[in-house]
Amino acid sequence: MAVDFSKPHRRFNPLTGGWVQVSPHRLERPWQGEETEPAPVAPSYDPQCYLCPGNTRKGVAVNPEYDGVHVFDNDFPALLDEGHAESNHDPLFRAETARGLCRVLCFSPHHSKTLPELPVSAIREVVEVWAAQTQELGQRFGNVQIFENKGAMMGCSNPHPHGQVWATEHWGLEVSREDQHLRQYREWHGGSLLLDTAEREFEQGERVVEANADWLAIVPFWAAWPFETLLLPRFKVERMPQLASSQRDSLASILKALTTRYDNLFQTSFPYSMGWHGAPFGMPDIAHWQLHAHFYPPLLRSAAVRKFMVGYEMLAEPQRDLTPERAAEMLRSVSGTVHYRSLP
Amino acid sequence: MAVDFSKPHRRFNPLTGGWVQVSPHRLERPWQGEETEPAPVAPSYDPQCYLCPGNTRKGVAVNPEYDGVHVFDNDFPALLDEGHAESNHDPLFRAETARGLCRVLCFSPHHSKTLPELPVSAIREVVEVWAAQTQELGQRFGNVQIFENKGAMMGCSNPHPHGQVWATEHWGLEVSREDQHLRQYREWHGGSLLLDTAEREFEQGERVVEANADWLAIVPFWAAWPFETLLLPRFKVERMPQLASSQRDSLASILKALTTRYDNLFQTSFPYSMGWHGAPFGMPDIAHWQLHAHFYPPLLRSAAVRKFMVGYEMLAEPQRDLTPERAAEMLRSVSGTVHYRSLP
Ligand SMILES: O=P(O)(O)O[C@H]1O[C@H](CO)[C@@H](O)[C@H](O)[C@H]1O
Ligand SMILES: O=P(O)(O)O[C@H]1O[C@H](CO)[C@@H](O)[C@H](O)[C@H]1O
Repeated sequence: MAVDFSKPHRRFNPLTGGWVQVSPHRLERPWQGEETEPAPVAPSYDPQCYLCPGNTRKGVAVNPEYDGVHVFDNDFPALLDEGHAESNHDPLFRAETARGLCRVLCFSPHHSKTLPELPVSAIREVVEVWAAQTQELGQRFGNVQIFENKGAMMGCSNPHPHGQVWATEHWGLEVSREDQHLRQYREWHGGSLLLDTAEREFEQGERVVEANADWLAIVPFWAAWPFETLLLPRFKVERMPQLASSQRDSLASILKALTTRYDNLFQTSFPYSMGWHGAPFGMPDIAHWQLHAHFYPPLLRSAAVRKFMVGYEMLAEPQRDLTPERAAEMLRSVSGTVHYRSLP
Repeated sequence: MAVDFSKPHRRFNPLTGGWVQVSPHRLERPWQGEETEPAPVAPSYDPQCYLCPGNTRKGVAVNPEYDGVHVFDNDFPALLDEGHAESNHDPLFRAETARGLCRVLCFSPHHSKTLPELPVSAIREVVEVWAAQTQELGQRFGNVQIFENKGAMMGCSNPHPHGQVWATEHWGLEVSREDQHLRQYREWHGGSLLLDTAEREFEQGERVVEANADWLAIVPFWAAWPFETLLLPRFKVERMPQLASSQRDSLASILKALTTRYDNLFQTSFPYSMGWHGAPFGMPDIAHWQLHAHFYPPLLRSAAVRKFMVGYEMLAEPQRDLTPERAAEMLRSVSGTVHYRSLP
């Protein structure tokens, strides 16, 4: 007999080796916990914002009157591009130097237009900068982590739409886990875990949120966050800089459509953390790798009520209430073309 | 040369195989992000609370006029004690039935007294119930996860102080990871990872927060959350029910002292998720296991400013700003005996 997905069950994440517990019946639960007031819509320019064009940043730097995407070194970087590689080998107190650098990427001069509200051409420019940063920093660092924290709920410290790049000599825990599982899949089953996933998900359709000729956005079978999505290329590609021009165009389109659905779902600027994983640099064999992006949005029931990954989740394993199939259906049922704020 | 802990570095977590990135210089960073208003102090009884004695819970059940700890089955359980064990083996879509049950444990009839504000004798009763629940449910389930989500920030849906027990047939991801690393340590180094840790941390002292003859609370070398602590027995014990009466007494004392320090640090009811890990049930050889509790508190700089584990943390690896050594020092510098609310 097959597992009954309408009853509590666990799903395995073949990309990380993790598990998620699914409790479909639990959405009935009343909520008396924390509710968050969504932020009001901000103006197009804020003289206090240290990311807006022409403003002075903390310290002394002044932002240029930039026009498209603006990249600069983080004034308060978590990593420093200095120091010698050292390590301590005590099995109980093992440590090593972490060298790297952190950059900030303002998506546009506009203080309040997040990705879904920018024209596709502006998103296309963001893609271009992501690829160029990966290319440049990949010459010197093993891992180039591109990500965006969107919304105060996701720890974003400035509402001006921006992403970040943290480049590190080491590969990082998540990338190492994915590397191991991607490699193993290739050894055991042949082929590529993520290309096979894209193909089978596209055929089945029930977890598909958006698709075009080159790209596919799904709520993965093993999604932990309520509306988590995985953005997959439908062709073999290990790293962002390899994308052809037309594939960058289609990527910009699907990013616009996916984030528009997100905003439309609860008629709010949908918070999330998103980021890219591609083949680490300095790895001799990367045939098992495939470029992809994860979107981790916290909202569960409305613009005010989020999912908390707390006690059980931190101590045992992630738990979700609504099934990934239902989440995909909900995201498909709202518009991917018309943003709710653009309605009269 | 040894790793310079005043500069960015990574530390290895030998219990889970994870890593954490430490950026000690980054505490200078200004914060313009989310700030949370702490909840006001609640009354001792709330007629609307579905955990207070004598009140009607969602549905039909009525709470007894209970006196000490009150345990009941969760009205909206994430797990159900029914269904047959099934599994799907497709490598991309692997799943299995998850059978289990969920209980709620009100710490006391008082609607607003959290652990540090209860007398040691009342905490001793909580320990007693934790042990009894583990004993009872361990007869039928592989993992008995005891935990507490404290505070709205940690997804607690009702301010009446309470913990939970989720018992599952499967062991859960975190327990499986710890099992693997505890076992490996024993094979490679002999002895017990956590007993060795307790001994060396007690000797070194710099990460110790509280200690008595039986127990030790430390900010572990590899702590990810700013004020994360690990509560360790200083004697060999695999599971909670094995604790002798005097060891339960000393456990109640150290719990009171540790949580008092937490509340005193930012003069607020300190939010956290905490929970116990012990040897899973149905495991033939548990010699490598050692009972312990994790405390994961989110606050970073004040009662209003928390650490967010978001973009980089979700996509690459956990990152922290203040060193574990500094966090331990800060916790040691406040009182472990007098709670700030009891001051005149
Ligand atoms: O069981 P509660 O308190 O209603 O819910 C809380 O704890 C659970 C277990 O950690 C989480 O799954 C929920 O997201 C959280 O809100
Ligand atoms: O870099 P920011 O936006 O100041 O900070 C935010 O993102 C970082 C990277 O995910 C996190 O470490 C911080 O906790 C979060 O507040």
